[in-house]
Amino acid sequence: MNTTFRDRVRAYPGTASQAAFLLGGIGTGNVSVGARGELRDWEIFNWPGKGNYLPFSFFAARVVGAGAEPVTRVLEARLPGPHAKSHGYYNGELAGLPRLAESTMWSTYPFVYVEFRDDELPVRVTMEAFTPFVPGDESDSGIPGAVIRYHVQNPTGADLTVSLVGSLANALGFAGYDVFGNLKLDGNVENERRDSPHCRGLHYTTDLDPSSERFGTIAFATDEENVTFRRAWLQGQWTDNAQDFWDDFASDGRLDDSRTIDAPGSELDNFYDFSYLRLREKVGSIAVEKSIPAGQTATFQFAVTWHVPNRPKGWIEVDDELAAHAAGRYPTIRNHYATEYADAWEVMQRLHRDLPTLEARSRHFTEALYGSTLPDEVIEAVANNITVVRSHTCFWTEDGNFYGWEGIRDHVGCGKGNVNHVWNYAQTIAYLFPALERTMRRIEFQGELDADGALPFRSLQSLGEAKWQMVPAADGQLGAIVRVFREWRLSGDDAFLRDLWPGVDRAMEYALRRWDTDGDAVPDGQQSNTYDIEFYGPNAMMGSLMAAALKACAVMAEAAGDPAKAERYTTLATRSAANLDRLCWNGAFYEQRLDDPDAYRYQFGRGCHSDQLLGQFLAHASGLGHVLPADHVRQALSAIYTNNLVDQMSTVHTVQRVYALNDEPGLVLCSWPEGGRPRFPFGYSDEVWTGVEYQVAASLIYEGLVEEGLTLVRYVRGRHDGFLRNPWSENEAGHHYSRSLSSFALLTALLGFVVDLPGGVMTFAPKATGDFTSFWCHGKGWGVYRQRRDEQGELVAEVEVIEGELGVAEVRTPADRVVVLEWVRAGGR
Amino acid sequence: MNTTFRDRVRAYPGTASQAAFLLGGIGTGNVSVGARGELRDWEIFNWPGKGNYLPFSFFAARVVGAGAEPVTRVLEARLPGPHAKSHGYYNGELAGLPRLAESTMWSTYPFVYVEFRDDELPVRVTMEAFTPFVPGDESDSGIPGAVIRYHVQNPTGADLTVSLVGSLANALGFAGYDVFGNLKLDGNVENERRDSPHCRGLHYTTDLDPSSERFGTIAFATDEENVTFRRAWLQGQWTDNAQDFWDDFASDGRLDDSRTIDAPGSELDNFYDFSYLRLREKVGSIAVEKSIPAGQTATFQFAVTWHVPNRPKGWIEVDDELAAHAAGRYPTIRNHYATEYADAWEVMQRLHRDLPTLEARSRHFTEALYGSTLPDEVIEAVANNITVVRSHTCFWTEDGNFYGWEGIRDHVGCGKGNVNHVWNYAQTIAYLFPALERTMRRIEFQGELDADGALPFRSLQSLGEAKWQMVPAADGQLGAIVRVFREWRLSGDDAFLRDLWPGVDRAMEYALRRWDTDGDAVPDGQQSNTYDIEFYGPNAMMGSLMAAALKACAVMAEAAGDPAKAERYTTLATRSAANLDRLCWNGAFYEQRLDDPDAYRYQFGRGCHSDQLLGQFLAHASGLGHVLPADHVRQALSAIYTNNLVDQMSTVHTVQRVYALNDEPGLVLCSWPEGGRPRFPFGYSDEVWTGVEYQVAASLIYEGLVEEGLTLVRYVRGRHDGFLRNPWSENEAGHHYSRSLSSFALLTALLGFVVDLPGGVMTFAPKATGDFTSFWCHGKGWGVYRQRRDEQGELVAEVEVIEGELGVAEVRTPADRVVVLEWVRAGGR
Repeated sequence: MNTTFRDRVRAYPGTASQAAFLLGGIGTGNVSVGARGELRDWEIFNWPGKGNYLPFSFFAARVVGAGAEPVTRVLEARLPGPHAKSHGYYNGELAGLPRLAESTMWSTYPFVYVEFRDDELPVRVTMEAFTPFVPGDESDSGIPGAVIRYHVQNPTGADLTVSLVGSLANALGFAGYDVFGNLKLDGNVENERRDSPHCRGLHYTTDLDPSSERFGTIAFATDEENVTFRRAWLQGQWTDNAQDFWDDFASDGRLDDSRTIDAPGSELDNFYDFSYLRLREKVGSIAVEKSIPAGQTATFQFAVTWHVPNRPKGWIEVDDELAAHAAGRYPTIRNHYATEYADAWEVMQRLHRDLPTLEARSRHFTEALYGSTLPDEVIEAVANNITVVRSHTCFWTEDGNFYGWEGIRDHVGCGKGNVNHVWNYAQTIAYLFPALERTMRRIEFQGELDADGALPFRSLQSLGEAKWQMVPAADGQLGAIVRVFREWRLSGDDAFLRDLWPGVDRAMEYALRRWDTDGDAVPDGQQSNTYDIEFYGPNAMMGSLMAAALKACAVMAEAAGDPAKAERYTTLATRSAANLDRLCWNGAFYEQRLDDPDAYRYQFGRGCHSDQLLGQFLAHASGLGHVLPADHVRQALSAIYTNNLVDQMSTVHTVQRVYALNDEPGLVLCSWPEGGRPRFPFGYSDEVWTGVEYQVAASLIYEGLVEEGLTLVRYVRGRHDGFLRNPWSENEAGHHYSRSLSSFALLTALLGFVVDLPGGVMTFAPKATGDFTSFWCHGKGWGVYRQRRDEQGELVAEVEVIEGELGVAEVRTPADRVVVLEWVRAGGR
Repeated sequence: MNTTFRDRVRAYPGTASQAAFLLGGIGTGNVSVGARGELRDWEIFNWPGKGNYLPFSFFAARVVGAGAEPVTRVLEARLPGPHAKSHGYYNGELAGLPRLAESTMWSTYPFVYVEFRDDELPVRVTMEAFTPFVPGDESDSGIPGAVIRYHVQNPTGADLTVSLVGSLANALGFAGYDVFGNLKLDGNVENERRDSPHCRGLHYTTDLDPSSERFGTIAFATDEENVTFRRAWLQGQWTDNAQDFWDDFASDGRLDDSRTIDAPGSELDNFYDFSYLRLREKVGSIAVEKSIPAGQTATFQFAVTWHVPNRPKGWIEVDDELAAHAAGRYPTIRNHYATEYADAWEVMQRLHRDLPTLEARSRHFTEALYGSTLPDEVIEAVANNITVVRSHTCFWTEDGNFYGWEGIRDHVGCGKGNVNHVWNYAQTIAYLFPALERTMRRIEFQGELDADGALPFRSLQSLGEAKWQMVPAADGQLGAIVRVFREWRLSGDDAFLRDLWPGVDRAMEYALRRWDTDGDAVPDGQQSNTYDIEFYGPNAMMGSLMAAALKACAVMAEAAGDPAKAERYTTLATRSAANLDRLCWNGAFYEQRLDDPDAYRYQFGRGCHSDQLLGQFLAHASGLGHVLPADHVRQALSAIYTNNLVDQMSTVHTVQRVYALNDEPGLVLCSWPEGGRPRFPFGYSDEVWTGVEYQVAASLIYEGLVEEGLTLVRYVRGRHDGFLRNPWSENEAGHHYSRSLSSFALLTALLGFVVDLPGGVMTFAPKATGDFTSFWCHGKGWGVYRQRRDEQGELVAEVEVIEGELGVAEVRTPADRVVVLEWVRAGGR
């Protein structure tokens, strides 16, 4: 077990009921590990499923030494309550089986650990689970499954025999729960035994038609020796199934697949179709027995894989759409993983065959990130939000397209269609999986863009839906232009730029026509935006985005071979920035220039707006540098930090949505330090969005206000403590909200990272002037950047390439000497 | 504010998230008060609705003194979290409005109190709420509404102006929530202003057809002066509604019903039917302003009433039935309250007109119960479980019939049809509302009973459903016979006995034929029972029930004028008891006599069974006295207490349902002190049911094992601490589980209370030999029994009749002197 970086991360006790670490790959769905070590939130069926539990699915251990009574325990910490469900607990939760006194959970992404403590259990057990994750390799980061291990240490002076059993219900055809909390399944399921060279286990099937949305397979297997199986628990009445299983396992630590019942049962069964009475799920179990010598540790390894290939083709979100889906009115499209694997057993074989490599490569990432000198809170903000990419907020279809909701509700997505004004903030995928991010730009500029250059802010057409008809979002459209620039620079993919440039140019011209009514290159017309309303008049959020887009277009036009356009956009970029500064700068920050902020609802007027420099943020994160005067940028960020960071959110009296409250600190979206709050300011103005907090934090860091930026990050992460919120989900309009992916910019800001693959230059300009280490990545490779002062006081930099290639001819750093190390070792690519 | 008995009851801090006190009357549905002082679990629409919230429905106060800044706060304690819903909080929860630091909740039934503490609020506020409750008066205990008051104390040295505002959404036509958590309403709602001599307020209507199931009215009113109203909040976009309301109220503590918006709003509204965007509910508000002099207290009184007359006629429980209901395939039947009131405003007028009397009579009950010397835990067990009678576990229809589910799930009933084997344990309604209890017996014996005497254990036919076809429950059928006896003795209603006797006789003969296969008057055949399985062979649960039923039949036969039958049953009763004792007594307790307890599934064999003396319990609670040898009864109860009371439930490893766990104590249904646990014992054998714990506790007390009984009661109540479970809901197969109504027998046991109205005798034989006071009640009156030793050492008893009449010619007590006091005062009847 690898506990190298345990001291760098927070730990969550078993009572941290909100902590849930998502296993599963990109576009595969998930199952989560809770702080008690339980498997929870089964979301493997192409739908979000917070709270979805699989009955009878858990691990347990039986420990016995010579002359001692065996001790059999479920490998989960005790249920802390409340115990107030209408029936106490669901039958399938088996709440009355003995559990362990305490647990501690931590994670070094993509690995999660749960350590158990219990005086009655003679061994020390730690669970370890992960799904392989390798930057730049979306395929190997997209395996529909997870490895689950238990490390069992024998601290006694005598040898012990330990049996570890895992049970998993076959929930294929999952159609929710009945009023008894039992699974409703479409079709009939079967569990079969399978052996392969690398593993042995159970393959779960259903008799549903392979084209049906609920069709699929699940595999549950181990690579261990000395294994016994139960293909399916006894099909009795009431609790016969679990009673028999537990008695069987507890008696000798082995499973007997031939047990039956012959005694007559209950009359009710002859008479009434009472779901609680008859176990309809088929629950399979796998037990592994090992002898653990005194003082030694043994590991018991299991894996779960799934393959539920067909997802509804479309964006199903609101009640009407759910009803249409229930009525069968959506076609299906396959998940990308279905193009790589025929069924769950094939996934299982591949996972086992390549596990050493997959795990080693995953650990290289862990080491690169957690082994850095980045502050703990930054590592946490970057790493934990990677979860978004592998949650149901995102999906990945057979045609290679990658999609994002804004976030997810418990059981359905929220915010359809790669919403450009929300994804505007996100950086993580652009850096870690740039090929996926590029599909989003292609969908926008090659699929959605109107002939006149208007970009619908929801991309619906590529999934066969009608075009989103509303006015384009000014922030989303301008940001998308900058993001094309970013994708091009991070990939060096000139063909990508060539393909998209005509559309980008059209979109830029549209933006100028549509939002700049007076020709000063500052948006002043009706500006629809991410607050789901429209701004009027000049403001720096849209102004900085326009300046950034123009600057990006100037560079792209040149590269696309259109020098006239390059000149036009260069001129406009300068004019845009100058005019914005003149119009909106109030000496302390950028205001909205509007004579009567109450003439329209939802303005902010003289307010200090946290997103006033969103364009500047995007410019930095994309490598465009300053688009507004650096001193004003820095002053404005100071003003945001001073005015909008609230120590105790209870002092903010608001009727808006609430993401921070009571004595929690938070950065509100707007404040009015000099008064002038409109009667109806924009309806999210009092809200605290982690995506904006990170945007501001990264912007502060870019401007050298590092401590302020880190303070903000600490506040955000402090609110996600496992008790009040899930450390692996920052919520806004949904769990795992996409805007939180702005967090990756904390890393690029601290690293001073600018990538220009087309130009062959990569720049590291860390905020730290001395010793410093960080993970880096771009479209062709990833690794670690290190700088340290040697004994002579010279700054020495080392650029280590762990996977892929350096990708540039020139590396710029503040160091006196630079060394490039490229890996050629097992597991590296 | 009446805080007389505050020290007798437990208090729950605002963080006790499970604590929810149900307002509402018999057969009316409910709204609950939570420990933070919030209104929660709106269940006024003829369905259970745990977790159903009404958006924008809360109370707030604005306090201002001369020269001070006004302080405006929602009158709820802060939200303690988790804050992890997908969108943080629902918009309608207004989680960002300022709340109070802390709260403490307590209840002296039917009154609930929540005291708030907050350093920033210049006044001390306590909420008081109740729905009138008077034993024996089901009509006045069945008012669909509640009084909600705020007592505001000004502890400062200066006068303060205090405004109290209440807001309530018009949720008529309630059809659940959309994916945004917003109300879905059938039909269109309107709010109108109404004034009456006793109150002024708002009347909520819907344009649904009055015959439709979702039709109804709601009233919200006050009897205060200096009132301002807002009929409906601004119909704007996004959060305009709440922003405007809060600004309006916070500005001057008064409401302006004429406020409008003229500035243009958001484009989205022109384009997309986005439920969060437009407030569809109409939220009404009522504000009352008072000046409170230094050191003084003022009370602000409001009331809510509702009238949702039509409920589905039938027992809708499982998925198929829910689907049939959704498809409109159930007729409707009116609630009983609809026969008394035409609409919610009529309820409101009546409530206000008679409030002094209704409240005084309710307080007489509180004083009679809480002013007694009964142990705190007994008062709590009796009083808190009265909630069952006024929860959705029960309903009361226009024809006068009273019905009970076993309990309720969050959103649907659980266990249809007055299940006789579950209601077997319940005593509360039999004593407090005997007229209602008698309708349940009439339904069984006049409606359901087969020609051959078989009694379906679910009564379905009176609501138009097909007869329950399964084998009768031996325990339910035998218990129902005893309960006819109880109802007759508690009411003195000879006509009731005459009407039912032929059926009772038929049921008794059926029981003998069906369950006693060898003529020894001990059941030994297949005995279906409350564990949802069948026992085989002699056992004391069924045996004691048969002995009790035979003894009851002997008395009833005599009274019904059938001396031959009386003789037959007398003989059989004696034979039954003697044979049972001979067959099952093992020297320590009564076993199941079965050669091979594994020959059938779900037996208990040599186990010590907590329900082994259920028939004896019912005999005592009904006034039949001992039916088995008193020494064996006492020994068996000692054995149950010793063997089945588990100190730490974590030591019980069970796959069954779980109602007590971890370090909690609990009485399991069965144990095997000498071994012999079957491979598949009855499937609830390891479970802890409060209804059985009270049954055993009362039985212990009846046998003089008072401390043991009280210990059990303390354990049960200790588990319901507000954090882990709701103090006002003991759950088994559902919230507010009917079996918990066995708790009333704790009172009758301690009081040694035997009522024989037909015979004109009432007996008080308290377990306490000295000073003692208790509430008493029967079908004709209720009051307080007191005994004390006077200075001469003589025991003096006083029987106070608070409502109704003494009802008997003879009162038996252990006292040397007995005084009867009958009330003739305002409010008494």
